[in-house]
Amino acid sequence: MIMDGMADRPIKELGYKTPLETAKTPNMDKMAKIGICGLMDPIKPGIRAGSDTSHISILGYDPYTVYTGRGPFEAAGVGVDVLPGDIAFRCNFSTADENGIITDRRAGRIREGTDKIAETINSMELEEGVEVIFKESTGHRAVLVLRGEGLSDKISDADPKHEGKAPKEVVPLEETAEARKTAELLNKFIQKSHKLLKDHPVNLKRIEEGENPANIIIPRGAGAVPHVQPFGEKYGLKPVCIAETGLIKGIGKIAGMDLVDIDGATGGIDTNLENIQDGILETASKDYDFLLINVDGADEAGHDGQMEEKVKFIEKADSIVGEIMKLEDVYYILTADHSTPISVMDHTGDPVPIVIKGPEVRVDDVEEFNERSVTRGGLCRIRGNNIMDILMDLMNRSTKFGA
Amino acid sequence: MIMDGMADRPIKELGYKTPLETAKTPNMDKMAKIGICGLMDPIKPGIRAGSDTSHISILGYDPYTVYTGRGPFEAAGVGVDVLPGDIAFRCNFSTADENGIITDRRAGRIREGTDKIAETINSMELEEGVEVIFKESTGHRAVLVLRGEGLSDKISDADPKHEGKAPKEVVPLEETAEARKTAELLNKFIQKSHKLLKDHPVNLKRIEEGENPANIIIPRGAGAVPHVQPFGEKYGLKPVCIAETGLIKGIGKIAGMDLVDIDGATGGIDTNLENIQDGILETASKDYDFLLINVDGADEAGHDGQMEEKVKFIEKADSIVGEIMKLEDVYYILTADHSTPISVMDHTGDPVPIVIKGPEVRVDDVEEFNERSVTRGGLCRIRGNNIMDILMDLMNRSTKFGA
Repeated sequence: MIMDGMADRPIKELGYKTPLETAKTPNMDKMAKIGICGLMDPIKPGIRAGSDTSHISILGYDPYTVYTGRGPFEAAGVGVDVLPGDIAFRCNFSTADENGIITDRRAGRIREGTDKIAETINSMELEEGVEVIFKESTGHRAVLVLRGEGLSDKISDADPKHEGKAPKEVVPLEETAEARKTAELLNKFIQKSHKLLKDHPVNLKRIEEGENPANIIIPRGAGAVPHVQPFGEKYGLKPVCIAETGLIKGIGKIAGMDLVDIDGATGGIDTNLENIQDGILETASKDYDFLLINVDGADEAGHDGQMEEKVKFIEKADSIVGEIMKLEDVYYILTADHSTPISVMDHTGDPVPIVIKGPEVRVDDVEEFNERSVTRGGLCRIRGNNIMDILMDLMNRSTKFGA
Repeated sequence: MIMDGMADRPIKELGYKTPLETAKTPNMDKMAKIGICGLMDPIKPGIRAGSDTSHISILGYDPYTVYTGRGPFEAAGVGVDVLPGDIAFRCNFSTADENGIITDRRAGRIREGTDKIAETINSMELEEGVEVIFKESTGHRAVLVLRGEGLSDKISDADPKHEGKAPKEVVPLEETAEARKTAELLNKFIQKSHKLLKDHPVNLKRIEEGENPANIIIPRGAGAVPHVQPFGEKYGLKPVCIAETGLIKGIGKIAGMDLVDIDGATGGIDTNLENIQDGILETASKDYDFLLINVDGADEAGHDGQMEEKVKFIEKADSIVGEIMKLEDVYYILTADHSTPISVMDHTGDPVPIVIKGPEVRVDDVEEFNERSVTRGGLCRIRGNNIMDILMDLMNRSTKFGA
């Protein structure tokens, strides 16, 4: 169970305590008491991990080889069945004028009708042998996947970043036929999207209502879908992922996990924690060996610099820990994927606390679960990609190396 | 700030305490109280680091790829503008008799006139296309740099190690044209040095005065100057190096740092600590982002097995820590580059204490700075090459890996 971005730095307003040190967390503290604690560097000491690279590392993969960018995971997270070698992009629905100048990068923050627009884009014939797979995400966001032989993710972004400019010409970032071909295809895709969408019924209606039309698609962040050994095969465990955000769902998906959707899971501090708790308990009762759980609210509060909200959210999430802890014959690992300090409003490389509870762990004398108390724990300081090895070993499911 | 060789092992005569545990160090202890402490392995646990390999690691480079031998760093440290690919040697001014037998490896521990001798060596025409750069260091020591195409550092040493023998024939250590050529050049260099120096005015005067003449140059420790990404470029920080010894200055130089010379800095326990302190404070007031400081006395005391002197030197150096600690808005890292135990009189692989003081660090409850107290600190146990990543993250100057 990963409390996204829960760890922090000491804050003056909290008497130089962290939000986790400040929050009343009787259940996490109980877990520290009956478990083994330590510090964990998601990647290695001082490295500022993304949620994606950290989860990849924690699941036992090497983020330096698996991680090609956010595109593939976002695409998988919104439900595209990506395949290794696919080139995936994050996209914006944007507004262009008749000269092709972007007048609104977010198309009036469009919320409805994007599924109809996506349908049209999916009908696009871009090039013989290259399949266009396009899917709307939330709001003005979407994903694009190009599937075919001879493609590359070594190409530049089309996003002009500012309004009043035309989409940037996509250029190859390396001197290969694949990169040149993909760059050309992207430029063609953008032009074709404008042609297909400028008179689209959804857009005609938007114009009538005084809204900016979503009449051009701007892709960015090309990433090749990595070859990933399915988690279930790698560890011989049947895995499932319970996550709120598309990014983490996409990681679960690409690792071959089943996904569980939770009603009202927003990924924010307003998320429905009761539904998440119910979803976890229901999933745990099924035929799974491994649950990857991500709760995102503390990270959002950190990004927004909301100190009190972060403390409160941690206190609320603590009750889920209390319920899950009641499950028997289970190894339970509680940690964060990185620190998201209130003062920084972004991820930092500070290590995070971790506790492992379950049969036969070497219980230490740590009595509280927070960034500082765990440094005297029995795990000392480990790395994210040690976790699966430790877990498999505790479960007596790993093979011996040697005689 | 690196207190060279400060760490040690428990010593019976000190009641099984280390010199650092014995020394009265109110300022280092204060830093431990207000900072975050831990153990640090300069390279990895149990590896006996040199001062050079440890500093290379602490600065974020991989010593296993960057370190080719001591020659390049010594050469850079005495002020030769070495270039990647140069082959550098440490040399002795020695005395040879008329048959070419070395009668004194240190030429009567010559102290004066070596600059004049160096001038003559620099005029040597060794081979078309190969530049000879020679510079005297302290006493009987000097450096030689060969610059040109097709050279190699894979050659043997000329140093016979004992008096009464001729210089060893330099041979290639690998079967390449480059190694063969460089070995031949070295043999030629040694012969030519003897011809050029035997009637050198400085030597004629020495003979007159009953001193052994410095009439032959014996090179050893060939090392190719490595390609090193400048520290300033690697981290986006403007760096400066304040060090006493040529070796550490050379590391700073090769890493592209400015160097500060301190009057009276001998690298021994008799060094002028006041001048070092003044030099640090003055340099800190300038336009630098990063100061690498090395104080060498504790290491020298360790190499000489001087227990009481080591304790006393640590106590004296403690006052510098007190003054530097007053600087505001600074991250201050205090550590050693390796242990130099009195009992071993050389470096060992025992880990060293480290403390980081500065804004927002997760202060732990360690109250003394020494090899044992820090093991309960918030850093747990880190490695030398984690330090720059941790520091860059604390300064919020690192880029995120992932989303």
